[in-house]
Amino acid sequence: MQPRLSRIGQKMSRLTGVRAIMKDIIETMQSGSGKWINLSPGNPLILPEVEAMWREYTAKLMAGKEFGEVVGRYGTSQGYMPLIDAIVTFFNKNYAWGIARENVLITPGSQALYFYAANCFGGPGADGTSRKIVLPLSPDYTGYGGVTLDDDTLVAYKPTIDITAPHRFKYRPDFDRLHIDSNVGAVLFSRPANPTGNVLTDDEVRGIVNAAAKHDVPVLIDSAYAAPFPNLVFTKMTPIYGPNVIHCMSLSKAGLPGERVGVAIGDAKYIEALECFQTNSGIHSSRFGQALAAQAIDSGDLLRVSESVIKPFYQRKAKVLTDAFERELPADVPWHLHEAEGAIFAWLWLKDLPITDKELYQRIKKHHVFVVPGEPFFPGLKEEWPHKHECLRISLTATEEELEKGAAVIGQVVREVYGK
Amino acid sequence: MQPRLSRIGQKMSRLTGVRAIMKDIIETMQSGSGKWINLSPGNPLILPEVEAMWREYTAKLMAGKEFGEVVGRYGTSQGYMPLIDAIVTFFNKNYAWGIARENVLITPGSQALYFYAANCFGGPGADGTSRKIVLPLSPDYTGYGGVTLDDDTLVAYKPTIDITAPHRFKYRPDFDRLHIDSNVGAVLFSRPANPTGNVLTDDEVRGIVNAAAKHDVPVLIDSAYAAPFPNLVFTKMTPIYGPNVIHCMSLSKAGLPGERVGVAIGDAKYIEALECFQTNSGIHSSRFGQALAAQAIDSGDLLRVSESVIKPFYQRKAKVLTDAFERELPADVPWHLHEAEGAIFAWLWLKDLPITDKELYQRIKKHHVFVVPGEPFFPGLKEEWPHKHECLRISLTATEEELEKGAAVIGQVVREVYGK
Repeated sequence: MQPRLSRIGQKMSRLTGVRAIMKDIIETMQSGSGKWINLSPGNPLILPEVEAMWREYTAKLMAGKEFGEVVGRYGTSQGYMPLIDAIVTFFNKNYAWGIARENVLITPGSQALYFYAANCFGGPGADGTSRKIVLPLSPDYTGYGGVTLDDDTLVAYKPTIDITAPHRFKYRPDFDRLHIDSNVGAVLFSRPANPTGNVLTDDEVRGIVNAAAKHDVPVLIDSAYAAPFPNLVFTKMTPIYGPNVIHCMSLSKAGLPGERVGVAIGDAKYIEALECFQTNSGIHSSRFGQALAAQAIDSGDLLRVSESVIKPFYQRKAKVLTDAFERELPADVPWHLHEAEGAIFAWLWLKDLPITDKELYQRIKKHHVFVVPGEPFFPGLKEEWPHKHECLRISLTATEEELEKGAAVIGQVVREVYGK
Repeated sequence: MQPRLSRIGQKMSRLTGVRAIMKDIIETMQSGSGKWINLSPGNPLILPEVEAMWREYTAKLMAGKEFGEVVGRYGTSQGYMPLIDAIVTFFNKNYAWGIARENVLITPGSQALYFYAANCFGGPGADGTSRKIVLPLSPDYTGYGGVTLDDDTLVAYKPTIDITAPHRFKYRPDFDRLHIDSNVGAVLFSRPANPTGNVLTDDEVRGIVNAAAKHDVPVLIDSAYAAPFPNLVFTKMTPIYGPNVIHCMSLSKAGLPGERVGVAIGDAKYIEALECFQTNSGIHSSRFGQALAAQAIDSGDLLRVSESVIKPFYQRKAKVLTDAFERELPADVPWHLHEAEGAIFAWLWLKDLPITDKELYQRIKKHHVFVVPGEPFFPGLKEEWPHKHECLRISLTATEEELEKGAAVIGQVVREVYGK
């Protein structure tokens, strides 16, 4: 039985399509027999060197007096000050961003940050205007579909598709379509992108930031996979900062997803609004993870481990999967793999796919392999577009052997589906 | 400069009056010289036995393999399953509530829980009705003023005042005024209450719960100070549960405020709606504090430490302050101390106070003593009522000596103000 819910309650009770798929996968694995190859997870692996680092800093925290202060006292809404100081020092030293404490906010994970921002900057205003949250390039992170409190606020734009090589492609923002004016509350995109591994070029980012700056619109750049941590970037990219940029980070892919540590860096006027939202809706973020992160950033360990452990681990997986697809997918089918520029997923586009992505997911599942159909990764894109039903997301968290076996199964099913 | 904010952004950017006071206190202490007696904090003290317990469970977590799973993996939105199981077992064994996993949700602190509930159940509905969040007895926790996304949703009711003894009083819900029908989205109150130390009687709670049940309205009972943990209860009370009750707990007063662990226990239909809100707005709560709590509940240590350390510590402070007020406050002034039934504050009502509570705060501050004026603790009570400007909140977190010195200063200022 449904309880009596507000309009907001009804919106927020709906979960994104990916969660339905994940539920199906868990139930299938629990009910079915045999061995499964699971290429669906968004949950990063625990890498031994990374866990060792967080264990070391926990031991250090335990050895000192600070432990009691960290867990046993309320903190400020802005965040744990040693972490804020570590971030200020790091970005000023390495990127010369010239930031101060007032430019940093710690949130309980970056999803919460997007939730605050989407509803502080987007939605109905006191002047009667309803401002949009714009995703300049669809597909993008499925979770963005959950952060606005009403259905109409999120608007995503179709990209252009650049065939970069045989069976390779890259999405590009379509600056002819993309429209940013003062009716836009904020712009939001992930870089590197979940689910595609796309990294918008520095010029593309500057194009978006400049267009938004003209109308005083903040741009949230979701850098959950970006340099400097976790540095899941396999191409060249510079973190872009500016007066209307809110640079958003997460420690989830640097080994602390369970601790929910998100970071916003931006102009003090934005940070202050987001901080107030946090005060009212949850007081402050939990502090244990923040205390570990402060130490690991200050010592340089987080930077080092990201560069020498986390990045090569997933880069190698991306290479293995790309090679496997080259071997296993039929050359005479118009399949295209997105350029593997970062993050922990591969994104396969099957042009003119004769069935839907959901049906393809089911066919692949029959062979005991799980992938994720692409359709849920187009939140906010209301128009019909065949491409939305022609893609699959494949996780790089599986072993190399599993990636190769999975690619073989996908190749076999694709051959059948296209009648080759 | 203010950024362009949505209506929600504007509401959520306002902070409760208590935060302005707290800011004034911090700035005054930083700028002023001399020694201050601070009777304002809501931040509980770190009690050595309590810290030792959490250190012990951190060491146990570190000794096992689970550490990596706890911090290094995303969890389910519902919460860390060993904690959910510990809560189910505990409440079924000790209170025979007959709950299952589906009845429990872990949130990042209880403020977040009230935020989800206020906006899931209150505010504009799809049917055009805007449903209220009702505080049945004002004053209550100031933070409730921050949880609704618009200004009109929160409605509080004036209580009746029961003079229980010379210079003693107790608030009671005024069942002649209190109106609950299907236009109410949810009812919310703290028990024991912050700021008053009031504990609604079992009969009063049943009266509210039954009135709400007739219209299928959920009742959130904020048990942040209640039995079984932290058990800051100095009178008799039974935790009340039922089909329309959402029992809300926090580990903040049991020594983990920094870790933000809130718990909701209620009917599965409510828990599911709140869990979805959490998924969309923040994925899940951080897991380190949850993992410690799971162990400490299972072992019985949390129950034991609450009963034998936390409760007597603050109960003793309440007695010291009550005795000091008896000595220091003039018998011929109509001062009334709220019955000290629980929580970590004393609440002083100065009937017919010739100046406002804010002015009294300033006068006391001149003597290097900080208290908190009472007015911010009446969120949602729109009507004028002189009583709103006649109260002070005094924290029991100070030392016994400070409480006695503070009471002497308050006594002296009160004598001057009333011209005695």
